Amino acid sequence: MSTETMICENLTVDARGHLNFAGQDTVSLAKEYGTPLYLMDEDRLRHNCRIYTEAFRKNFVPGSLVLYASKANAFKRMLALAGEEGMGLDVVSPGEIYTAVKAGFDMSKVYFHSNNKTDADVAFAMAHGVGCFVAESEEELYAIEAEAKNRGKHQRVLIRVTPGIDCHSYEAVNTGKVDSKFGLAIETGQAEAAVRLALDLPHLEIEGFHCHVGSQVFGEDVFQRSATVMLEFMARIRNTLGYLAPTLNLGGGYGVPYVLSDGTVDIAARIAEVAASIRSDCARLGIREPRIQMEPGRSIVADAGLTLYTVGGLKTIPGYKSYVSIDGGMSDNPRFALYGARYTCLPADKMLEERTLTADLVGRCCESGDVIQEAVPFPASIGRGDLVAVCTTGAYNYSMASNYNRLPRPPIVMLHGGESTVAVRRETLEDLVALDL
Amino acid sequence: MSTETMICENLTVDARGHLNFAGQDTVSLAKEYGTPLYLMDEDRLRHNCRIYTEAFRKNFVPGSLVLYASKANAFKRMLALAGEEGMGLDVVSPGEIYTAVKAGFDMSKVYFHSNNKTDADVAFAMAHGVGCFVAESEEELYAIEAEAKNRGKHQRVLIRVTPGIDCHSYEAVNTGKVDSKFGLAIETGQAEAAVRLALDLPHLEIEGFHCHVGSQVFGEDVFQRSATVMLEFMARIRNTLGYLAPTLNLGGGYGVPYVLSDGTVDIAARIAEVAASIRSDCARLGIREPRIQMEPGRSIVADAGLTLYTVGGLKTIPGYKSYVSIDGGMSDNPRFALYGARYTCLPADKMLEERTLTADLVGRCCESGDVIQEAVPFPASIGRGDLVAVCTTGAYNYSMASNYNRLPRPPIVMLHGGESTVAVRRETLEDLVALDL
Repeated sequence: MSTETMICENLTVDARGHLNFAGQDTVSLAKEYGTPLYLMDEDRLRHNCRIYTEAFRKNFVPGSLVLYASKANAFKRMLALAGEEGMGLDVVSPGEIYTAVKAGFDMSKVYFHSNNKTDADVAFAMAHGVGCFVAESEEELYAIEAEAKNRGKHQRVLIRVTPGIDCHSYEAVNTGKVDSKFGLAIETGQAEAAVRLALDLPHLEIEGFHCHVGSQVFGEDVFQRSATVMLEFMARIRNTLGYLAPTLNLGGGYGVPYVLSDGTVDIAARIAEVAASIRSDCARLGIREPRIQMEPGRSIVADAGLTLYTVGGLKTIPGYKSYVSIDGGMSDNPRFALYGARYTCLPADKMLEERTLTADLVGRCCESGDVIQEAVPFPASIGRGDLVAVCTTGAYNYSMASNYNRLPRPPIVMLHGGESTVAVRRETLEDLVALDL
Repeated sequence: MSTETMICENLTVDARGHLNFAGQDTVSLAKEYGTPLYLMDEDRLRHNCRIYTEAFRKNFVPGSLVLYASKANAFKRMLALAGEEGMGLDVVSPGEIYTAVKAGFDMSKVYFHSNNKTDADVAFAMAHGVGCFVAESEEELYAIEAEAKNRGKHQRVLIRVTPGIDCHSYEAVNTGKVDSKFGLAIETGQAEAAVRLALDLPHLEIEGFHCHVGSQVFGEDVFQRSATVMLEFMARIRNTLGYLAPTLNLGGGYGVPYVLSDGTVDIAARIAEVAASIRSDCARLGIREPRIQMEPGRSIVADAGLTLYTVGGLKTIPGYKSYVSIDGGMSDNPRFALYGARYTCLPADKMLEERTLTADLVGRCCESGDVIQEAVPFPASIGRGDLVAVCTTGAYNYSMASNYNRLPRPPIVMLHGGESTVAVRRETLEDLVALDL
């Protein structure tokens, strides 16, 4: 079993049959910090950042920037790390802006998204020096203009455009098609009208255009297709309005394998292909090559994360099914409940035992839908006190976690060089009632 | 429009076209407390509790008890109110137990559920004097026995049984069938084996049996069917093991209408029917009538709750669709994202305007799946600054809320007699980073 192919190379098995993550024994970590426990591999995070930043340096014009999509997992240590790696930040709320401020992030490299920025949000972001707003509507452009005027400053904006490309990823993360709550469609003329307005508003400075076709991209390169559509739009705007935007933000993000059958994406190679395609498009259209931005989130953090749970029991119903229940669930990982998301789940303390049992891995929440994964292979000996690892949980687990069933959220422990450090502490029962008056 | 039928009688419309909830102007409340805002109608809560408690008093033997299923919405004021109404409590975690303790709840009336109680949970619950454990497995019976022995006390237990009834409600809330992570099946003999064990363990005192066939029950009365199966099981146990349990807990709960087409359930009448059926079953089986328990959660709190949001904008994509976006979303109400749940959504500040526009009501989270409801009728004039009410959000909204997109959770404001009181305060940005080290 020690030769089994792991879902990520930061996973190994030691002689005792313990799963190691980032070179550290998960059984010891569970004992030290308790479960449920989110672990994050700091070296893997930096490795993932550098795949993008190095590919950007090699392939795109100076000033191009990789933005970490902080909604994937935002806490102070994580945002600080993205900053250390030379990345900008894609934020979606005052909460993410505030976290960036507290992490000491260079706010000029922060890009503020959201299909629903309130006036208070606009003021808050500007007060904290957010570098650029990604504007979604004419109403929002007016709101940004009003606030910038108030403050006697100019505000950079990207205009979010829907290129009309239907990306075949999950429905819930599929946002580039015309029929979307996000952005302004090229097809309907709404994108061009917004550009015209933004050029007229005296306190706005258009930095360029943004699009986001969908995340978890594996197949046909939707970045190339959307870049082509966007560059043609930019050329048309130059022709009709005499304005050539300096920046094109292609959104996020490349796919991450959750199970072995997902396969992998060679992100560096893909970015080189996108760059070649952009150069060729620009030559054809007679425009200078824009600065490029992308917004990876999942592909930065997903495989740098792993969740550990303790088994409460194995329940076998003769003639039906088996269930392995754990001490967390949809409260710390709602992605199966939301999307039927797939995960690789491993018996972290019994990796050398043969896995002859098939069981659903279920959470402790009082809800039948509280499933982490169906039909997981486990050793037949699995039982109360054993340890289960759910891999590739660095994205959209902690950030989507709730206190459903009044369960405290697990801590996040960062791993690096044989050391472990708490980056987010475990919620306490006292925390749970802290807001109750 | 003022004659329109409302989804709940605590909703009215005043002369200005403002939606009133519990007799109070939602527009004023939004101004006073900000949005997003959870409101709860205290009189409606008490009314809903009393439907059960009065029906129980009339129909079941003394000692029967209604337990509020606190997972539907657990905060100190709510649990205290359930206690004031003479109800017991169904809790599922140390967090809910702790909230009950802080609410001053009579812990002898607290019933501790969960398919995955850890040893630490068992110790915590016993230390806080939890009246009864609802045991799900032999492993758990041993864990309770060990802890009770440690403490030199006897612990009451209900044994959770799956009666093998498939309730046609949502899959995610359908738990009475044999193939379930919950309970011990009658069909496989596992239920009887557990009873035999519990009778042998010297520090356990069996109070009776528990089953839960599913929540949101409207149609054919699954309570009657499950009561029949359970009473037959109890009679069989009396015959084989010489033990007749004094209590039968039928779980929760009756359905709540979210949209007008759901129709309504006359809970008092239904309970009377269940009682008649139980009396007849007991006569047929020659057993004395047990004390009955039920565990309503949703039908206590759902229609006592309403969420207010401020509109950020109306987006119309010619030839496609319209979107009304709001300042909350799946972070405070994930039920559409999880289950495609239906809701009645109202233009709270424009109730007298004709609703000629159809739009999806979408949240502010950076995710296409962040939808509150599709195809909602709105006035064509709806736009930035308008107020939207989502009705019947008292259950599984606050309790399932997350900080997704780093959004602070809304406060809960209780309404009673023209007064409003904050029961749960709004989360602050400082709260959001409080766990980050």
